[in-house]
Amino acid sequence: MNDVINLLLQHRSIRKFKDVPFSREQREAILSAAQAASTSSNMQAYSVIHITDAALKSQLAELAGQQAYVSECPLFLVWCADLHRYAEAAHRHGDTPITGNAENLIIATVEAALAAQNAAIAAESFGLGVCYIGGLRNKPADVSELLGLPQLVYPVFGMCIGMPDQEPLHRPRLPQEAVYHENRYTANPSAVSAYDETIRAYMHRRTNGKVDTTWSKEMAAKALRPRKHMKAFLSSQGFDME
Amino acid sequence: MNDVINLLLQHRSIRKFKDVPFSREQREAILSAAQAASTSSNMQAYSVIHITDAALKSQLAELAGQQAYVSECPLFLVWCADLHRYAEAAHRHGDTPITGNAENLIIATVEAALAAQNAAIAAESFGLGVCYIGGLRNKPADVSELLGLPQLVYPVFGMCIGMPDQEPLHRPRLPQEAVYHENRYTANPSAVSAYDETIRAYMHRRTNGKVDTTWSKEMAAKALRPRKHMKAFLSSQGFDME
Repeated sequence: MNDVINLLLQHRSIRKFKDVPFSREQREAILSAAQAASTSSNMQAYSVIHITDAALKSQLAELAGQQAYVSECPLFLVWCADLHRYAEAAHRHGDTPITGNAENLIIATVEAALAAQNAAIAAESFGLGVCYIGGLRNKPADVSELLGLPQLVYPVFGMCIGMPDQEPLHRPRLPQEAVYHENRYTANPSAVSAYDETIRAYMHRRTNGKVDTTWSKEMAAKALRPRKHMKAFLSSQGFDME
Repeated sequence: MNDVINLLLQHRSIRKFKDVPFSREQREAILSAAQAASTSSNMQAYSVIHITDAALKSQLAELAGQQAYVSECPLFLVWCADLHRYAEAAHRHGDTPITGNAENLIIATVEAALAAQNAAIAAESFGLGVCYIGGLRNKPADVSELLGLPQLVYPVFGMCIGMPDQEPLHRPRLPQEAVYHENRYTANPSAVSAYDETIRAYMHRRTNGKVDTTWSKEMAAKALRPRKHMKAFLSSQGFDME
């Protein structure tokens, strides 16, 4: 073990922030760390939009499902999968069509995620807290219009960053044997059953006994809330996923 | 700046490894760090397969495009987007269909990437080097069959980990103003032009003047090599992307 591992293990999402500004140096270091992440064939197929405009932040908070911490956090970033820059560059030397096919969607989504995770760790190394905002995909067309996203760019998630003003419990993760396999995928339903009880105990503790649930019950509830609009939205941004 | 930021900035892909084994403690810490990454609604929609079988590693190296370092690295991991476990859990409490729609594909792909990036950083904190292997998507159906991947699971990328036996140059990234925007997406073609010259100089240095290229030329070349099979493959794994 070492300090870096400890930092990674200490991660929890932070949704309440002190009114403490970040420095320009911190912001630039966070973005430099993001840029240092691995990239497929050096495509760097992502963009990050820093929302400095308070009114725009409030609109995004609303679109994300009235998540107040989006407007309240000192630093809010929108991480985008971006094939537009790649297409613009490639077209300087030919007219090979660049499409938002399934592979390109995966590349750009992965690149946004790798860069964002480096940014999250960099922020946490400064003692800041972060929270990913998948809720930007609730109304992705509205978000894209507000941010002026061109074709072949879509918002994957937002990220709140700021000085934590809360000490949330660590939510336990699945037992390692549920996500870890050797040589061959092997489903482990008994590890899921064990985790159900872990989550039950955790939720009891977190809610002073008010909530009785398990992981599998949460997953069944989650299944009732699909974001079915994503295909049509992605198609409108040029991601045909062919 | 601090030690964590410096670690993140020092990242380069490592493709040549010393024949030094990793410890079980290191492997477990790397995977614990992966599990600590953010997860959407606690879905933890990824799996990681550790390839300990030498023959299997060689087959994967071949499928990835004869990348010898896949078979030579001490620790090779395959990171999978995994909705199978989520579906199995949800179906304990109802029969809401879980599909590989576009949103679920994105969630699971992002979760695999966030976990993998934490693993990469944890490995680098031990002085190990890593390399992502997108080449597993060259023949993803063969990879999936070898690893016994069930429906709603697909291999996003592999990862080589081991003690570095090379000191590659750091490849410069795009100028920050090319990937960073404030409030609104703003294409920056002049930053791309400047980067073209940066990459030209870098490639001259790396190849002792033998290769004359630019970033945009590399991107035009990349555009000629699409992985057009991904849609059909994903569909066969249950990702209809509807």
